[in-house]
Amino acid sequence: MKPATRRRHPSFAVAIVMVLAIGAAPRAVAARATQVAPGVWRIRLGAPDKQTPVSFSPMKPVTAAMKDLGAPDRSPLDAGAIRWRRTDRGVTLELPLGDADQVYGFGLHLITFNQTGSTAAMLVNENQGYEDGSSHAPAPFYVTTGGYGVLVDTLRPATFHAGNTERAKDPHASERPKEIAVTTGDLYRARAVSTKRMMVDIPAAKGVDVYVFAGPTPLKAVQRYNLFSGGGAVPPLWGLGVYYRGYGRFAEPEALNLARYLRENHIPCDVFGLEPGWQSAAYSCSFKWSPERWPTPDAFIAAMKGMGFEVNLWEHAFTHPTAPFHDAIAPYSGDYTVWNGLTPDFTLPEARRIFQEYHGRELVDKGISSFKLDECDAQPHQQRPWSFPDFAQFPGGLDGARMHNLFGLAYQRTIGELFTQRNRRTWGKVRSSGALAAPSPFVLYSDYYEHRAYVRGILNAGFCGLLWQPELREASSLDDLYRRTQTAVFSPQTVIDCWFMPQPSWFQIDREKNIRNEVMPEKDQAERAMRDILNLRMSLVPYLYSAFSDYGRTGKPPFRALVLDWPDDKKTWNIDDEYMMGDDILAAPLFGHEASRSVYLPKGDWYCFWTGRRYEGGVSYDISMPAERIPLFVRGGALLPLAEPVEHITPDTVFQLTVRAYGSPCRDRVLFEDDGFTNDYARGLQAKLTLSWSPEKGGSVARTGNYPKPRNAVKAWMPISGEAVPPTAAGG
Amino acid sequence: MKPATRRRHPSFAVAIVMVLAIGAAPRAVAARATQVAPGVWRIRLGAPDKQTPVSFSPMKPVTAAMKDLGAPDRSPLDAGAIRWRRTDRGVTLELPLGDADQVYGFGLHLITFNQTGSTAAMLVNENQGYEDGSSHAPAPFYVTTGGYGVLVDTLRPATFHAGNTERAKDPHASERPKEIAVTTGDLYRARAVSTKRMMVDIPAAKGVDVYVFAGPTPLKAVQRYNLFSGGGAVPPLWGLGVYYRGYGRFAEPEALNLARYLRENHIPCDVFGLEPGWQSAAYSCSFKWSPERWPTPDAFIAAMKGMGFEVNLWEHAFTHPTAPFHDAIAPYSGDYTVWNGLTPDFTLPEARRIFQEYHGRELVDKGISSFKLDECDAQPHQQRPWSFPDFAQFPGGLDGARMHNLFGLAYQRTIGELFTQRNRRTWGKVRSSGALAAPSPFVLYSDYYEHRAYVRGILNAGFCGLLWQPELREASSLDDLYRRTQTAVFSPQTVIDCWFMPQPSWFQIDREKNIRNEVMPEKDQAERAMRDILNLRMSLVPYLYSAFSDYGRTGKPPFRALVLDWPDDKKTWNIDDEYMMGDDILAAPLFGHEASRSVYLPKGDWYCFWTGRRYEGGVSYDISMPAERIPLFVRGGALLPLAEPVEHITPDTVFQLTVRAYGSPCRDRVLFEDDGFTNDYARGLQAKLTLSWSPEKGGSVARTGNYPKPRNAVKAWMPISGEAVPPTAAGG
Repeated sequence: MKPATRRRHPSFAVAIVMVLAIGAAPRAVAARATQVAPGVWRIRLGAPDKQTPVSFSPMKPVTAAMKDLGAPDRSPLDAGAIRWRRTDRGVTLELPLGDADQVYGFGLHLITFNQTGSTAAMLVNENQGYEDGSSHAPAPFYVTTGGYGVLVDTLRPATFHAGNTERAKDPHASERPKEIAVTTGDLYRARAVSTKRMMVDIPAAKGVDVYVFAGPTPLKAVQRYNLFSGGGAVPPLWGLGVYYRGYGRFAEPEALNLARYLRENHIPCDVFGLEPGWQSAAYSCSFKWSPERWPTPDAFIAAMKGMGFEVNLWEHAFTHPTAPFHDAIAPYSGDYTVWNGLTPDFTLPEARRIFQEYHGRELVDKGISSFKLDECDAQPHQQRPWSFPDFAQFPGGLDGARMHNLFGLAYQRTIGELFTQRNRRTWGKVRSSGALAAPSPFVLYSDYYEHRAYVRGILNAGFCGLLWQPELREASSLDDLYRRTQTAVFSPQTVIDCWFMPQPSWFQIDREKNIRNEVMPEKDQAERAMRDILNLRMSLVPYLYSAFSDYGRTGKPPFRALVLDWPDDKKTWNIDDEYMMGDDILAAPLFGHEASRSVYLPKGDWYCFWTGRRYEGGVSYDISMPAERIPLFVRGGALLPLAEPVEHITPDTVFQLTVRAYGSPCRDRVLFEDDGFTNDYARGLQAKLTLSWSPEKGGSVARTGNYPKPRNAVKAWMPISGEAVPPTAAGG
Repeated sequence: MKPATRRRHPSFAVAIVMVLAIGAAPRAVAARATQVAPGVWRIRLGAPDKQTPVSFSPMKPVTAAMKDLGAPDRSPLDAGAIRWRRTDRGVTLELPLGDADQVYGFGLHLITFNQTGSTAAMLVNENQGYEDGSSHAPAPFYVTTGGYGVLVDTLRPATFHAGNTERAKDPHASERPKEIAVTTGDLYRARAVSTKRMMVDIPAAKGVDVYVFAGPTPLKAVQRYNLFSGGGAVPPLWGLGVYYRGYGRFAEPEALNLARYLRENHIPCDVFGLEPGWQSAAYSCSFKWSPERWPTPDAFIAAMKGMGFEVNLWEHAFTHPTAPFHDAIAPYSGDYTVWNGLTPDFTLPEARRIFQEYHGRELVDKGISSFKLDECDAQPHQQRPWSFPDFAQFPGGLDGARMHNLFGLAYQRTIGELFTQRNRRTWGKVRSSGALAAPSPFVLYSDYYEHRAYVRGILNAGFCGLLWQPELREASSLDDLYRRTQTAVFSPQTVIDCWFMPQPSWFQIDREKNIRNEVMPEKDQAERAMRDILNLRMSLVPYLYSAFSDYGRTGKPPFRALVLDWPDDKKTWNIDDEYMMGDDILAAPLFGHEASRSVYLPKGDWYCFWTGRRYEGGVSYDISMPAERIPLFVRGGALLPLAEPVEHITPDTVFQLTVRAYGSPCRDRVLFEDDGFTNDYARGLQAKLTLSWSPEKGGSVARTGNYPKPRNAVKAWMPISGEAVPPTAAGG
C-alpha cells in the first residue's frame, strides 16, 4: 500500500507492541501495529525496503467489502509475541503458530499442499518437477486454520520455516523412534515438531512490514487479503470459454485452417493463441509480425474475428535488438540481457509506457485480445540458467534477486494496464506471479505436466490470490486425454495447448506421431468426447462468471481447497485432489487410467452432478465414473444454472439456462449480468439476476440493477430429489 | 592462512591493482595483490569476513614444495581486470576468463564435469540426485585450462557463474538458432556464450580475499592449492585396504560372525564399520555403547583386533541429551538443535576439546581407528530439512548459512586432531567437506548411488583437494555388482557398505531378499569374483601408497581427470568417465551390463593391464572386457609394482612385489616406505625404494632414507613388450 493509501485510514487504532530480538543478545524494540484497512494490521519492524509487493502494487483496498467481512478490534496475531533480529545476513522473524494450526499458501506449489512442517522459499522457479519450496509464483503470504493470514512484505528471496525448527531450549523437542532405521527414508522421515513457530528469514533486509489479515475464518482471511490488494480479477466472458494454442511452426494459412476446423466441427473455442512464430524474431522478441509466416496480420485478425475468435499472442519481455522500441527502452532496462534481449525495468513508468505504447498501437488496437507472457520466471537452482542473474541491477533500484520476484507481476501490470486504459478486459496466461496478484487478469501455467500436481495447483493458488490453469497438452491414452481435459474444464482457464504439434491432441495424442500427421483410429470418438467435455465448460459459464464476480466483489477465490470452507473438519486438512468451484460444485478429478477414487464429502447433503443421487457428507465414498465424466458433486440447497453450450461467446450471447434445484429448501442464486467485455460493471453498469425456487412455488427470477440487456434466460427448472436419476445420467 | 602465517612471507612483492566497481556507478578502489606463498597471490577486496576457509584452516603451506613447482614473478590472473561492487545483497566480483578456458572444480559435483557455462552454488547439500550447483563439498575454488586456480575465500553461500551471463553492452551476445523450437529442450538449450567472465556473487559479504594459484599448468595450480593448504592427506596403510560396513541392526554376535566369515573365506578386509546401532541413542548421538547391542565393547574390539580388523564407528555430531558431555558442550553449541541434539560449534577450541577428550578417552584410546562422520551436510532446497537453519547462531560468531559450509571441515578437524595428538593416522568417511581440505584424512561419500555419477565424483574431487569413495551397496545384477566393486577398488577408499542388509551383497544383491536371508544361487561364483576384484586392490596398495605419498609431498591428486595431465588436448576436456590413478594407471570403468565402451587414450604408448597389448595414444578405442575385469591401461615406460595380495595389512606386512616393466625405456619408480601407521614419516622416518629397469640390465632396487624396516620386497620383474600376452590375460 502506498503512503497515500495508508493515509486514508488515519482513524484506525495504533497499538504499541514489543518486538524482541531473538538469540544470544535480545534487544527490546518498540514497534507499532497500525490498522491499515478493516481487519488488516501492519507491524513495522526496523527499516523496511522501499520497494516491496505493497509499494509496487497499484492496489485500491476494497474497504467496504472488507468491513462486510467483519472488522475485529485487534489483530488475531498477538503482535507482542513477534520476535526478530537483524544480522549481516538480513532479518529473521519469529511469528507464533498455534499447536494445531495448519499452514497453507506461499504461492503456487504443485507438489506439496499443507505447508505445516515445510520450508517455502520465495524464489520464482520455472522448474516445478520437484518440490524445493520455490514456485512459479512465490507469495510471502500464508493462512492458517487458526483463522488469520500473514503477508511479509518483501521482494527478497525469503524463506518461511513453518514449524520445522527446534531450538536448543525447546521443552518438547522431537524424539526419534527407538527402532533402528535401515532405509534412508526412515532415517530422514519428517520429524514431529511439537514446538511450533513460523520463522521467516529475509536476506539483506534491514527491516520489514508484516501485515496481519483477520478472519475469523481462513476463508475470510484470504478474502481480506484479496480485497486488500483490490479484489479478484473478473474475466471477460470469452475468457471463460476454451483456448486453443496452435503449433509453433504454423504460418497464417495453417492457423486459419485449424480455426476453421474448430468451427466446422463445433468444437467450442473462444480464443486462438499464436506461439513465437508470429514474430520476426523470438528468443528474444522483436514484437513484430514475421513477414514470412504472418505477412498479412490485419487480414488474419479480421478473418479470426470473423469466425468469432479472440486472438492471443505469445511473447516474453526480453527485447530483441530489432524490436522497434529497443533503443527507446534501453535506458530503462537492466544491465544484463537474456537471449541478447534487454530486460525492461517495469517498475519504471517510462519502461511501462514505452512497452505499452508499442503494444497498444501495433497489437491491441489492431485487435489482439490477450497475451501469453512467457519466461518471466527464473531458474534459481539450475546449473545453466537463462534468466538475468540475481546480481543484475535495474535502473529503478532493484537487484536481480528482487526483480525476479516482481518481474512477472510487473509484466502483468504493464500488459493489464493496456486493456484497462481502453476500458477492455483481458484474460491472459503468465508464467510467474507473486503477492497481491488477485486483481491481475492473468492465469498461471507451467511447463511441468504431472496431472496430480496440476490439480494441486488449482487448490494452492486459491490460498494466495492466484489463478492456475492445468492446460491440456499431450496424453498417454484416451482416458488420460479426457481426464486432463476435465481438469482443464474445471479450472480458471481452459486451455488446449498444441504448441508442439500440428494437429489437435484428439487427432493423435502421441506427439511424434502427431508431427508426422498420423491420425489415431479413435479420432472421431475422441473428437466427440472432447466436444462433450468442452461443452460442459460452456454450460457452466454463467455459474463460473458469477463465482468470478464474487471474487471481484468479496475476494472469495472461485477455486479453493476444502479446508478453506471447512477448516474445523480435520479430514479436509490434507485433501489436495478435490476442490470447490464456486460455492456449490465440488470437483474430484480422476487421473490417467483410474476408473474410481475415494471422494470425501464434507458435512451436509451432496448430489452427484451426473445421476442426481444424494450423498450424505462427513464421510468418504468410492466413486466410479466413466472416462468421459469427471466426478462432480453439487451442494444440497444449490440452484445450479446450466446453459445450453455455445461455441463461443459474443457481446450478444444470451445464455439459455436450465436451473437445477438440488434438494429443498434451496438458497437463492444470484447471477451477475453486464456487458461482459468492459469495466463498466465496476462503475455500476451491472444487473443482478436472483433465481429462487421452492417445491411449493417452483422457480422465479428477479432482476435488479443498471445493465439493460439480459444475459441469461431461464428456460427450465429441474428439481433434483436425490432419488430419481435425471435423464443425462448413466454412471455415478 | 592466519595472519601469523602471512607474516612469514614479508618479502613477496606487493602490487597495486585497480579494482573497479561494475554497473551504473563504478568506483575505483585500490586493492593490494600480495604474494603470500610461492606462486600464490592474495587480492583483498573491501573488508573480508573474519571467519573464512583460510582463517579456520590449520594449514601450514608446504612452501619448499611450492617453490619446486616453479615460482613465477607475477599472478597469472591480471589483477587489474578484476572488478567488483558491494550492494546491500553483498559483494559481486567479476574475474576474467579466457575465451578458450575450460573451468573445473567448485567441489564434489556428481552430475556435471566441465563447469564452463555453469553456475555453481557454495551450498552443502546431501541431495545429489540432480545437479543444482550444490555439492557435498562446496569448494569456492576453480582451475582452468588457462593454467591457474582461484580460491574465493568465503564461507558464504556464494554462487559462481562460469561464463554464462551476458551484459547489455556485450559485443557478441548470444543469438538463437533461426529454426522455431517445438520442444522445451530446444527452447532452453544452453546458449553459446561468447563473452566469457567469471561472476562471483557473495551474499552478505562486505569484501573478500581472492587467492590466485599459478600453474603454469592446471595440474600444478591444483598442486599449489593443495600444498598451500598443507599438502594431501596420506592414509595409514590399512586405509588402502577394504572397508566392510555391517548391517544397522547388528549386535556384537552378528558383527563378529560376519567378521569371522570374511577371514574364513579370505575376503580381504582391513576395516570393519559399525553403524548407529553401536550407540545407546542415535539420531541424535549419545556416543555411548548400547548396553543391549554392544554390552562388552572392550571384548568386541579385542576380538576384532585379534582377527586383524580396524574398527570404524558411525556417528554424527548432533549431541543427544544423554551424551556424557552434553551439558559441558552446551555453552559452545548453536542455538538450534537437530533431532534434539546440540550442534557443537567446532570453530571454538573449547568445543573441540570437550568432544575430543571424550572421544579420545572412551573410543580412540580403547582401540577405535576411524570414524564415519554422517549428516554434517544439509538440505538447502528441501521442503523438510533436518539440519540447523541458515539463521542459527553459533557462539563463535558464525551464522547457520556459513556454518553449513564449514561444519564438515570443522568436524573432520576435530576428529582428525584426536589421532594426530596420538601420533596415529586415520582414514575415515565424511559426508561434507569444503575448501582447503587436502590434508584431512577423510573421504567423502553420499546416499546418492548412480554409478556414472560415482565415477564422475572421483574426477571432480581431484580438482579441489577432495577425495571421494564410490561405495558398493546393492546391485541390480551380478555384472552391476562387479562393475561397482571395480570402481570402489579404483578409488581413494574401497568400501562395501551393507548397513541396510544383513548378508554381504554377494550373498544376495537384492536388498529385500537379503533381509529375508535369501541367498542367490550364484553366491559362490559371486564370492570368488569379489575376492579376485578385491585382491586386485590389495595388489595395488604399494603403488597407491606411493601415489598418496606424492599427494602429501607435492600435492598431486592421486586420482584425477585426464584434463589435468593433458590440458592442451581438447579431447580430454569433457571426459568424465576415465581417470588416472597415480601417474601410470588409466582406469575406464564399465557400467551395469555394458560389456564394452569407448576409451580415449591420450598421446603416448599405453598397455592393457590384462593382456599387455600395446595401444597408441591420441585416439579412442572400443574396449570389451568381461564383467570381472575393469578396463585398465598402463602408461608406456611405467614400472608397475604389483603385490601378492594380503587379506589385511599389519605393521609387519612386507609386500611381495612383481614389477611389470611396460615398454622400454622405463622411468624409475619410487616407492615410499615407513611404519605406515604413525606420522613419523613427516618427521623424516621414511625410506625411498627406487626401482630401475632396462632391457639390458634388468631390474635393480636402491634404498635410501631413515626408516629401517623394509616394507616391500621385489620378487620378480616382468617386462611387457606389447606383443606377447602375459599369462594372466584373456580379454582386452
